[in-house]
Amino acid sequence: MTGVLDVDIREVAPRDGLQIEKPVSTAAKARLIAALVATGVRRIEATAFVSPRAVPAMADASEVAELLSQWPDVEFSALVASPGGARRAVAAGITRVEYVVSASDTHSQANARRSTAEALAQTAEVADTVHGAGGLLEVIVAMAWDCPFEGRTPVARTVDLLGRAHTLGADSLCLGDTIGTATPVRVGALVGAAVEAVPGVPLGAHFHDTYGSGLASAWAAYQAGVRRLDASAGGLGGCPFAPGASGNIATEELVHLFEDGGLSTGIDLDACVVAAEVAADVVGHAVPSRLLRAVRARS
Amino acid sequence: MTGVLDVDIREVAPRDGLQIEKPVSTAAKARLIAALVATGVRRIEATAFVSPRAVPAMADASEVAELLSQWPDVEFSALVASPGGARRAVAAGITRVEYVVSASDTHSQANARRSTAEALAQTAEVADTVHGAGGLLEVIVAMAWDCPFEGRTPVARTVDLLGRAHTLGADSLCLGDTIGTATPVRVGALVGAAVEAVPGVPLGAHFHDTYGSGLASAWAAYQAGVRRLDASAGGLGGCPFAPGASGNIATEELVHLFEDGGLSTGIDLDACVVAAEVAADVVGHAVPSRLLRAVRARS
Repeated sequence: MTGVLDVDIREVAPRDGLQIEKPVSTAAKARLIAALVATGVRRIEATAFVSPRAVPAMADASEVAELLSQWPDVEFSALVASPGGARRAVAAGITRVEYVVSASDTHSQANARRSTAEALAQTAEVADTVHGAGGLLEVIVAMAWDCPFEGRTPVARTVDLLGRAHTLGADSLCLGDTIGTATPVRVGALVGAAVEAVPGVPLGAHFHDTYGSGLASAWAAYQAGVRRLDASAGGLGGCPFAPGASGNIATEELVHLFEDGGLSTGIDLDACVVAAEVAADVVGHAVPSRLLRAVRARS
Repeated sequence: MTGVLDVDIREVAPRDGLQIEKPVSTAAKARLIAALVATGVRRIEATAFVSPRAVPAMADASEVAELLSQWPDVEFSALVASPGGARRAVAAGITRVEYVVSASDTHSQANARRSTAEALAQTAEVADTVHGAGGLLEVIVAMAWDCPFEGRTPVARTVDLLGRAHTLGADSLCLGDTIGTATPVRVGALVGAAVEAVPGVPLGAHFHDTYGSGLASAWAAYQAGVRRLDASAGGLGGCPFAPGASGNIATEELVHLFEDGGLSTGIDLDACVVAAEVAADVVGHAVPSRLLRAVRARS
């Protein structure tokens, strides 16, 4: 738990990994989180305080939050989509909050029933709530590279949103490749512009693996200056057979990629494989991780 | 078929993709090759002239070679593991030959019943045969990064083999990540050293995707100067459930990675998806490609 890491991975399986799955029990989530904690990962996105009608899998957010005090060495966070969600999160004891602003108006309307500008404007209120509880706020710009409705997101639009979100109170920022279509050249371009636009602000990136280039994009982000990356045990996140939904990059594959190259993640790969098995068991179906498949084939 | 490409992809599905599969008919191979030709790819490794006892799936190498004249615009090649194989290849009309030298003595003995030094020494005889037929020889250094028996291959050993193979007659060279364990930092290191050691010699790289980092490694190789990359339709190549065997990086995923970033491959992505479907149909089981799965889910 000490020392400076080359790459600081945030595990998102309990939130992004589970959010489109059939709801699993809070006990199953506790089992998954315990396995993730055992990997040595320092940050875990544990749940989301969002509409239980829209995302039934996250309806037990407060119950999940109650579990977390048993792991005091891990920084747990929750995702919110509104000031109300932020209030519920801090009431549940969560002090690390991710608030999503979509770079695409169409997606923002579909996802949160408000325009990008309206969602952005609420950042100040979310920040006040989080800071009032002694917490820290991260703004995730969703559809940072592409939107399924609007096509490519202009680099200038995403970068502008990052700057505004920071001004409105975000302590850290994250670029969300929400649909998993980013590729290394465009990742390098956007990250390079973002690093220049908000120097000194912790900047993360979040990739899915829809077209197989998720790990290459993560590597490109690292090369361009990103040191905070999201990943999900087993590559959980979206059923591979559901239109438009695909898994996050797999934590164990990302850990292997960096650690094999001598770059420290603070995460134990063997424990990651165990966590990926738990993730697959919790959702009751195969997960996309190639590394998990290779390790299973060997044993 | 004209113009300078940013990346020159060699399609290896008919050889590396099929070699550990249950043998498929020559007619099925013809169907696969026709689908690959339709993608616009300029180079296809069509078969291997190796022991039919060791690799029954390649027993019809001469029959496959006979088919190829119907596609005069594509550069077809065949893999060989001995001077005898090279003689059979040129007798069958093949003039682009890949000869494998393993950087690992243990693997070389297991795979070709000779040491690395003995395999290397035969390069001159293979080169004479190929050049005598007006052809060109590529030497692929297998286990260029890692060996399952010996562990990490020293960079100096692989680089030394490249230089010697070139001196002995190789017209081009290729770094083989035979077991799919390379990662970007180590790819950059080896490619950088190789480019310095054999300047001006066409240098390719060949990645498998055992631990999910195949595309990231391909991207790292490109960044370090490699412009020739192997890939296999659908990610075919080794059954994902067989110990130690895993697919090549998927052609359609590699094409998407580069073309999305504005780097030309000369290959049509839609035709690639069709070829990946044909590859899956020919082998009669699912292929690892994530892109194929995403495209199927959309339709």
